[in-house]
Amino acid sequence: MSASPLIGRLIEALRCLPGVGPKSAQRMAYYLLERDRPGALALADALREAVEHVGHCQVCRTLTEEEICPICADERRDRSVLCIVETPADVYAVQQATGYRGLYFVLMGHLSPLDGIGPEDIGLDLLAKRLDAGEVEEVILATSSTVEGEATSHYIADMARHRGIRATRIAHGVPMGGELEYVDGSTLSHAFEGRRDL
Amino acid sequence: MSASPLIGRLIEALRCLPGVGPKSAQRMAYYLLERDRPGALALADALREAVEHVGHCQVCRTLTEEEICPICADERRDRSVLCIVETPADVYAVQQATGYRGLYFVLMGHLSPLDGIGPEDIGLDLLAKRLDAGEVEEVILATSSTVEGEATSHYIADMARHRGIRATRIAHGVPMGGELEYVDGSTLSHAFEGRRDL
Repeated sequence: MSASPLIGRLIEALRCLPGVGPKSAQRMAYYLLERDRPGALALADALREAVEHVGHCQVCRTLTEEEICPICADERRDRSVLCIVETPADVYAVQQATGYRGLYFVLMGHLSPLDGIGPEDIGLDLLAKRLDAGEVEEVILATSSTVEGEATSHYIADMARHRGIRATRIAHGVPMGGELEYVDGSTLSHAFEGRRDL
Repeated sequence: MSASPLIGRLIEALRCLPGVGPKSAQRMAYYLLERDRPGALALADALREAVEHVGHCQVCRTLTEEEICPICADERRDRSVLCIVETPADVYAVQQATGYRGLYFVLMGHLSPLDGIGPEDIGLDLLAKRLDAGEVEEVILATSSTVEGEATSHYIADMARHRGIRATRIAHGVPMGGELEYVDGSTLSHAFEGRRDL
């Protein structure tokens, strides 16, 4: 028994965070109340603001508080290349790591017929209209390399080819700095298949 | 760059949680916005409510939204035994694990002269009045077994003895289920000193 129902409720609420179990939630609750009440209030505000104002970009479906996200709205970006990713976090990762200057399309998931997630659930109707518009010349498929991610990739590649648009898939292989002996078999086999002339 | 300043602010705010770095904060923010908006709102409310209403018990100093916490207010508890702990989480731990039916006093820290934390900062003036009142017959010292925790324990034990009150310290030794070979030397040496007749 906690000495306080409100603390109990806070501990319970903290468990909505991914990777936070009962022990961490308890530690977080007591930490905030004992040492960082301003931080807790700032977090409460940030959560409420984000939930109330963040929606989806009408062009690329990523999470944003604007109607059209800053990336889609950026006139200097190359509108002929479209990178397809599964989540907004993937957009962030590609933005951080690469010099990619094209646009994105965010599926917010992947095809998964067993879970009842079909083409329309991941916005492929919207994507089809975009490809029909004729501006896109290359689609870069950067879905994850799981079974569902690969299937989604192939589905979208078919959509693109059907319209005479080039479809490419990001390379899979040995991670940079990775030692060959610790790389899993499936990755290594991909790395061999994808070998290039030096 | 995130596609959204509000998401950036949420990621920043999540970092006030102990043990949450930039990567986990990012994962949490996107997870909440993509999959658990009701959970995020419930968390925002729970944080605000707890920060606004949770204060300290006027008797034992633990965190509670009442003037006097449910444990101190419980008439069925044994008022002659007082367990001294460092944090409200310790009260919770003792309540969960033991059959202890006495009362608590929560220091909300420990003596630490180097950080300028003296007796009044951990409520020892309040504790002195409580011991003077004559109801307490035994003080159980359950501060942590760090240097500061031990020093705090000894200080309070002196206060108690001065008033003719019994002061006991919880046992330190090999954890239950612990294998001797993996127990640290200091714990093992305590376990030997604290040996008992079988």
